[in-house]
Amino acid sequence: MNWPTHGSNPHYLYKAAGIRQPEQIYDFSANINPLGPPKSLWKNWGDFFQEIVYYPDPKATSLRKKLAEREGLHKDQVFIGNGGAEIISLIGKWLTGKRVMIIEPSFSEYEQACRVNECSISYFFIDHNGKIDVPHLSEELTDQDALFLCNPNNPTGIYFEKQVIEQILTTCSEKKCYLIVDEAFYDFVDAYQPLVPLLNQFPNLILIRSMTKMYAIPGVRLGYMMADAEIVQALQNQQSHWSVNGIALKAGERCLDEKHYVEQTRLFVRKERERLFRTFRKHRFDFLPSAVNFYLLRDSSMEDQSIFFHFLLKEGIVPRHTYNFPGIEGKWLRFAIRSEKENDILLEVMEKWRAIHQSSL
Amino acid sequence: MNWPTHGSNPHYLYKAAGIRQPEQIYDFSANINPLGPPKSLWKNWGDFFQEIVYYPDPKATSLRKKLAEREGLHKDQVFIGNGGAEIISLIGKWLTGKRVMIIEPSFSEYEQACRVNECSISYFFIDHNGKIDVPHLSEELTDQDALFLCNPNNPTGIYFEKQVIEQILTTCSEKKCYLIVDEAFYDFVDAYQPLVPLLNQFPNLILIRSMTKMYAIPGVRLGYMMADAEIVQALQNQQSHWSVNGIALKAGERCLDEKHYVEQTRLFVRKERERLFRTFRKHRFDFLPSAVNFYLLRDSSMEDQSIFFHFLLKEGIVPRHTYNFPGIEGKWLRFAIRSEKENDILLEVMEKWRAIHQSSL
Repeated sequence: MNWPTHGSNPHYLYKAAGIRQPEQIYDFSANINPLGPPKSLWKNWGDFFQEIVYYPDPKATSLRKKLAEREGLHKDQVFIGNGGAEIISLIGKWLTGKRVMIIEPSFSEYEQACRVNECSISYFFIDHNGKIDVPHLSEELTDQDALFLCNPNNPTGIYFEKQVIEQILTTCSEKKCYLIVDEAFYDFVDAYQPLVPLLNQFPNLILIRSMTKMYAIPGVRLGYMMADAEIVQALQNQQSHWSVNGIALKAGERCLDEKHYVEQTRLFVRKERERLFRTFRKHRFDFLPSAVNFYLLRDSSMEDQSIFFHFLLKEGIVPRHTYNFPGIEGKWLRFAIRSEKENDILLEVMEKWRAIHQSSL
Repeated sequence: MNWPTHGSNPHYLYKAAGIRQPEQIYDFSANINPLGPPKSLWKNWGDFFQEIVYYPDPKATSLRKKLAEREGLHKDQVFIGNGGAEIISLIGKWLTGKRVMIIEPSFSEYEQACRVNECSISYFFIDHNGKIDVPHLSEELTDQDALFLCNPNNPTGIYFEKQVIEQILTTCSEKKCYLIVDEAFYDFVDAYQPLVPLLNQFPNLILIRSMTKMYAIPGVRLGYMMADAEIVQALQNQQSHWSVNGIALKAGERCLDEKHYVEQTRLFVRKERERLFRTFRKHRFDFLPSAVNFYLLRDSSMEDQSIFFHFLLKEGIVPRHTYNFPGIEGKWLRFAIRSEKENDILLEVMEKWRAIHQSSL
């Protein structure tokens, strides 16, 4: 089966599954803020029109400055990208032909970006609790030039604490290996411990962030990278001119002022996550203890989740399949935390499934 | 002097020139439609908001189909890019390490894209009338893998007729060389002769187009390429995921319906071009016979245009400098054709200059 490589755009998934798409579907396959974009974007949407008429600032100076200020960095340590995906692409290009290791299962774009740039790729797998065995990783890390790690991890939702990252970073430093930490979902974590202060101490640390998840603006494409100024310069040399569009630049600046909205989102997501997990426990579904706005779930009575997956699709529930995540290959399904109403509908369908398929546990 | 590499974003130009930016400036440095975006975009701007909330279709299927239909091609022959600049970048990557020739002076991104991808680059220069000496080019074209040509050419505005392109294409075919024709401004040409029908006959032909010039939407970034399906596939493999944002995809589809607007623009630009050229002739300014919405102009009484350039900047008129165009390096200035009112202001300032600096001609 030729499954789509990512969530969102559900019609491709229905096509691949050979299932007629129901009239009403609920998309749990894309991990964006269930509260939608900040109100201020819609309120000021008219003002955004002028951004389409002018070339965007190719240096993104204003947004870079604002981000640098917020993070306590110099603007030369900040790079703005056409979504996190472009940044990963450019890092792949920057690593052309190098040896890279990816902590799996994880976001598939790391492998894709390294593969098209002829890197030699090795994998290190998290354990069954979603944790990283750091001593074992240190052993495995021999002559690699770069290590990719997603934190909190996608698709597991597991958050690795700063102490773990510091241990990995120290090992990487000793081995002259870059550590690339993708923090696309960092702002959904309740007790997030900033890694930015490590940047000045460790020039081999690269942090990637997305602005499209928290602010629910995946359509405009906006991400940033924080790293040593030399790495930023190297990526800038490869980035195509005017790569970040004017709407994204303006929306990015506005969103950075939305501190209350971020707080409100985090509270909402936690409340819904706890509510969902209680019901999943009650109905004996297996799930990983996510710290963010998505989670892995399975019916542990069956090794292969494909019957469950097809059932959900037919009911109009669109999870993210995991066939292309090394290490899980279809053994779990990933769900975004959506609105209260949508989560209710999900729970109803889950209960319907459970009524038909009694767990053997 | 560290001049900006492109037009638009005039504050960078004033900074580089060391001139305080006047309160009121008129930007002639970016070649976009002087009539602004089609009215339908503004009228339906509210509907565009939903495009920011969802991931864009990474395959851009709907826009590709619409373009393919219009051009009489298969959708696999059409590639959608995050602006023409991304397409040029990806072609540069595709040509990594190859021998390329660029017909100069021309858009600087071809050289930039080839340089960062370690191509070996040679140049062929147009003659002083802006024409290509095809027999001479055929001699010079020895073992190149690709030839870049901008048609109509930027910065000269000169349009090369289909017959000329066919001669070059035949030579390229014989020498197993790709011909990359950037048609970013094709839709401003009155008697444009389509090159698309040549695509099925010549698999070494690559056509690049921009949608941001005619439809005045440079802020959203949208371009496309038409070529052999294998080349399209090669670029897709290198393009970062979701590279073209949702606003651009939707705007692109809407703009393709704006046939009357394109016609109206062409008429307006011709009328203004003829009016401007009459006045330039009268005041003994030298200019090239542009077929599009911009033109090269100089005060032929001086070899170096920098005094003229600085005079204009101080008067709030922002032309595009030509310091980074090989073959002209500052000997001309490029001006976009703007609104009637803006062109009037330009003419006034030109007359003011002429009143001070009597031409020696």
